[in-house]
Amino acid sequence: MDTTDKNTVGIVKTNVIRLIESDRPLKLRSGRELAPIDVAYETYGELNDAQDNAILICHALSGDAHVAGYHSRDDKKPGWWDCMVGPGKAIDTNKYFVICSNLLGGCSGTTGPASINPQTDKPYGMDFPIITIADMVKVQKLLLEKLGIKKLLAVIGGSIGGMQVLAWAIEYPDFVDSAIAVATTSRLGAQSIAFDAVGRNAIVADPNFDNGNYYGRKVPDRGLAIARMIGHITYLSEQSMREKFGRQLRSAQAYSYDFDSEFAVETYLDYKGQSFVERFDAGSYLYITKAADYFDLARKHRTLKKAFEKVKSRFLIVSFSSDWLFTPEQSEAIVKGLIANGKDVSFCNINSPYGHDAFLLEPETLGNFISGFLKATHSPIAKDHGRQLNGANQKTLSRFEQAQRARVDYELIESLIEPDSIVLDIGCGDGELLARLKKDKNIKGRGIELVEELVLEGIRRRLPIVQYDIERGLENYAYKSFDYVILSQTLQTVKNPKKVFMELLRLGRKVIVSFPNFGHWRCRAQLLFLGKAPQTRQLPFGWHDSPNIHFLSLKDFDEFCRRLNVNIEKKMPLVKARLSPVRFAANLLAEQVIYVTSKD
Amino acid sequence: MDTTDKNTVGIVKTNVIRLIESDRPLKLRSGRELAPIDVAYETYGELNDAQDNAILICHALSGDAHVAGYHSRDDKKPGWWDCMVGPGKAIDTNKYFVICSNLLGGCSGTTGPASINPQTDKPYGMDFPIITIADMVKVQKLLLEKLGIKKLLAVIGGSIGGMQVLAWAIEYPDFVDSAIAVATTSRLGAQSIAFDAVGRNAIVADPNFDNGNYYGRKVPDRGLAIARMIGHITYLSEQSMREKFGRQLRSAQAYSYDFDSEFAVETYLDYKGQSFVERFDAGSYLYITKAADYFDLARKHRTLKKAFEKVKSRFLIVSFSSDWLFTPEQSEAIVKGLIANGKDVSFCNINSPYGHDAFLLEPETLGNFISGFLKATHSPIAKDHGRQLNGANQKTLSRFEQAQRARVDYELIESLIEPDSIVLDIGCGDGELLARLKKDKNIKGRGIELVEELVLEGIRRRLPIVQYDIERGLENYAYKSFDYVILSQTLQTVKNPKKVFMELLRLGRKVIVSFPNFGHWRCRAQLLFLGKAPQTRQLPFGWHDSPNIHFLSLKDFDEFCRRLNVNIEKKMPLVKARLSPVRFAANLLAEQVIYVTSKD
Repeated sequence: MDTTDKNTVGIVKTNVIRLIESDRPLKLRSGRELAPIDVAYETYGELNDAQDNAILICHALSGDAHVAGYHSRDDKKPGWWDCMVGPGKAIDTNKYFVICSNLLGGCSGTTGPASINPQTDKPYGMDFPIITIADMVKVQKLLLEKLGIKKLLAVIGGSIGGMQVLAWAIEYPDFVDSAIAVATTSRLGAQSIAFDAVGRNAIVADPNFDNGNYYGRKVPDRGLAIARMIGHITYLSEQSMREKFGRQLRSAQAYSYDFDSEFAVETYLDYKGQSFVERFDAGSYLYITKAADYFDLARKHRTLKKAFEKVKSRFLIVSFSSDWLFTPEQSEAIVKGLIANGKDVSFCNINSPYGHDAFLLEPETLGNFISGFLKATHSPIAKDHGRQLNGANQKTLSRFEQAQRARVDYELIESLIEPDSIVLDIGCGDGELLARLKKDKNIKGRGIELVEELVLEGIRRRLPIVQYDIERGLENYAYKSFDYVILSQTLQTVKNPKKVFMELLRLGRKVIVSFPNFGHWRCRAQLLFLGKAPQTRQLPFGWHDSPNIHFLSLKDFDEFCRRLNVNIEKKMPLVKARLSPVRFAANLLAEQVIYVTSKD
Repeated sequence: MDTTDKNTVGIVKTNVIRLIESDRPLKLRSGRELAPIDVAYETYGELNDAQDNAILICHALSGDAHVAGYHSRDDKKPGWWDCMVGPGKAIDTNKYFVICSNLLGGCSGTTGPASINPQTDKPYGMDFPIITIADMVKVQKLLLEKLGIKKLLAVIGGSIGGMQVLAWAIEYPDFVDSAIAVATTSRLGAQSIAFDAVGRNAIVADPNFDNGNYYGRKVPDRGLAIARMIGHITYLSEQSMREKFGRQLRSAQAYSYDFDSEFAVETYLDYKGQSFVERFDAGSYLYITKAADYFDLARKHRTLKKAFEKVKSRFLIVSFSSDWLFTPEQSEAIVKGLIANGKDVSFCNINSPYGHDAFLLEPETLGNFISGFLKATHSPIAKDHGRQLNGANQKTLSRFEQAQRARVDYELIESLIEPDSIVLDIGCGDGELLARLKKDKNIKGRGIELVEELVLEGIRRRLPIVQYDIERGLENYAYKSFDYVILSQTLQTVKNPKKVFMELLRLGRKVIVSFPNFGHWRCRAQLLFLGKAPQTRQLPFGWHDSPNIHFLSLKDFDEFCRRLNVNIEKKMPLVKARLSPVRFAANLLAEQVIYVTSKD
């Protein structure tokens, strides 16, 4: 135990509880029944009087109930997510009551293939029934009921734990205020199924496996080690393996010209395989990977959209850029399914080199997202709404992004929006405009933003912010699903303005567009008299370092709308953006302009 | 045998030859000696009188000497690269004499671990010495000598075959006119070593393996099948697996809730594993993968640049966009190593969804590159220099690319170039300008181009063309390694013109830049009087669909050069690009401009 750590939950204990008695078996998804069922779990923190601070953590393939703290003073390693859970940490045990249980089919206290089969008085082995993610979640629900918990502030999990999070939100919509699913998927793709299948093949091919009847004898350690090695390759990214090991040799300078493990990466895998065998049961490995392979929300509910139809919780979906096992695209599919139902979802694809393992290795960034989202959910009227980005974050923003943040057309845009509308802000920055609209006009707002730090700020404001590049298309937002779509000072920076504009017109009843006017007299004069690319207050960049890659005037945009059959409902040419609309010779005098447009 | 195929080499036979007698053993890289050595090989076509048409094909991990044709009329499957080798095919046996031998350590006729160890009169098993790629190549060289071949027109291979190609060019520079290395690497990264190691672990863990003494008994089939399954996952791309299998079930509509292989991808892997076991020796798998792991040109020669110092052949390096086993970046590293030595290298990263297997599955595209490169190497004064792109290719070019191809400033640029210079043309298109300069000015030319079809055209013109995006930096081109660098009509389309321009000034003694003049009176007038983004002959695009993302005038560029301390040696403002330099009021009258610049 690390006694210098002030933020540890300290010495903790795994409890085991009999949840299902032998005479009242649990009906499983496969149709088979299982009894008795014991469940191992740990809790940290205290349930408050309002009983609104309970958080369930769902663990992944090789995890267990022991999330945080130590089992004894001699214990060298803390729980598997100790970096995230403890007093003052992202999942703050001073504020929240945290529960985690070993999943059904596991091998760390909860009933699984190594448990005694009451029919035979011997370990189940391969007689254990196939388990699904929904079965695991059902058992967790029974545990929470037994513990007297009526509602969860949040259910949180990564990887296979994230699958459980999705299943929770779908199966028990009224029980879950918010769902945080990290590095997960609504279903495995062919490649992941293939890796799982090969791992299981290695276990079953081990001569010790003996059709699962190895308990109490020599275990299929070599097969399980091989399965684990395959797993570890998929948990790391190519980049992180390259940086961690490269082609480094374990010890010698010269090749040994034999078959010993001599590359550092081989030794690493040997070690990972070996240490896993000492703590994990091959049977559980088979059952849990099979449950993951079977998990398929689109199959179960006909489509992914339908799967999320009845969910009620707020969602935070997080992926990692270098995760090639459960990819960012798979997380985006979840986000799209939720968006298609108009649900409250935030999403960030955290930039990380660590691959799938990032959900264990990025405690700071991931912690910021989780704690920000939890706080906004738990205390929605938090005092930090008007907060500024701190220095560290501000440094990471480019000059352009900072300019964006200083957009001054907010007040005018606000004047255009009817109360109680549904609003989508494209390139919403830190959510300032949406927050204002929410406060002053009681709108229901959603934001799309590219910059990770700004997405985080928006989430802290309890706004549903999705990190996304609109140039990739917005097909999952339904036709006319917004009263207003706002595209402020962005049209001139996108690669394909026509495609983007038409998309926005599809999904918004009205689209509010603002951009700097290239037809302004200063631009004309500079090009005319100086013969140079214009630089003005609204176009402050040099010809070679401008984020503006298209230059258009009011007249260009008028013509553009005419050609595309777009209605211009309002046109506000502005001199000083905040205050002075232009009354005549707009294309000559306006520095920038706000259009309200629509298209049936 | 497919009797309808007119382009088959027909019935062929594998020959086995004793290359090394027992009393004169071959000294291996490991220091050990090996004798006797038999080699299995096939040949197709005829060696011509000039003896300049011999091509060696090097096979990959699971290949053999049987490249093309059938072994009998009952033979159902032709050789492993039959799509590429035959009369009229990319490697045309009407023109070329093709040889392929089973590699040392293999199991298809060449001496390997399954061969009899003369010391024990039993199969070698694990007593077989470790083989390196260089050892394999040495044996191939001995074979060619025995066959009376004095020189190779080309050595060609993909994957581990590509490693042999690189080794050939390095070890026997005078023997090889050209080297075609496909989907290969100069060394495996940690991830690939890891996959290999796990595969070997699975073989060794198989109880039948018995430390390699399984010959004549039950073979380690389950271990070898698992190794092959892992391999197959890495040969396919995630995308191709998704499209081929997805989550499709083998037969049933409902999950079977057991551990049988029920997903289509599982059945596929089972089949691939099983069929491999029937034709391949586990021992060879161990030895060949180990040879691949050991292959490391940078390690052997201190740096990758040094490795290529003495090569003399022309190179064609090909990678595939979705290959994550031997990645495009690894091919680019080879290209950079060759460029750093000023060698003659062409490169294309073929856009393909098929992953590493693309080298077997993209016969048409890959065939075009190989045949074009072979023809240009074999008959350098081919008649098709002035050829136009055919209709099919032209369709794939965008309007912008076609406009680029019609660049009319060639003649003027040509007038600026001194004879016998070394010239780099950035965005060289189909190589027309370089071909003209080569013909008229005897320059040594190199091109960089993004569009696959244009790269191919340049290669057909016997130009070294590298497919590359210059915005990623050009650090591997040495300081002042070119007399001229040409950037024609491209500066205004790159994201970071300053970075690109400075890079070019570093590597060229003179940099010739041309761009459309945004200061031209028509632009000024249009913006002034119409208040619209200008559209002219030189700037023909609308504000929203222009590939030009920066707009600059002569004056802008003058200022830019002044600020960057760049010398303007010559400035040619042009009205009609071909003929009319502008004598006064250049910034007002010039439609476009050519600058000659330099910087120490």
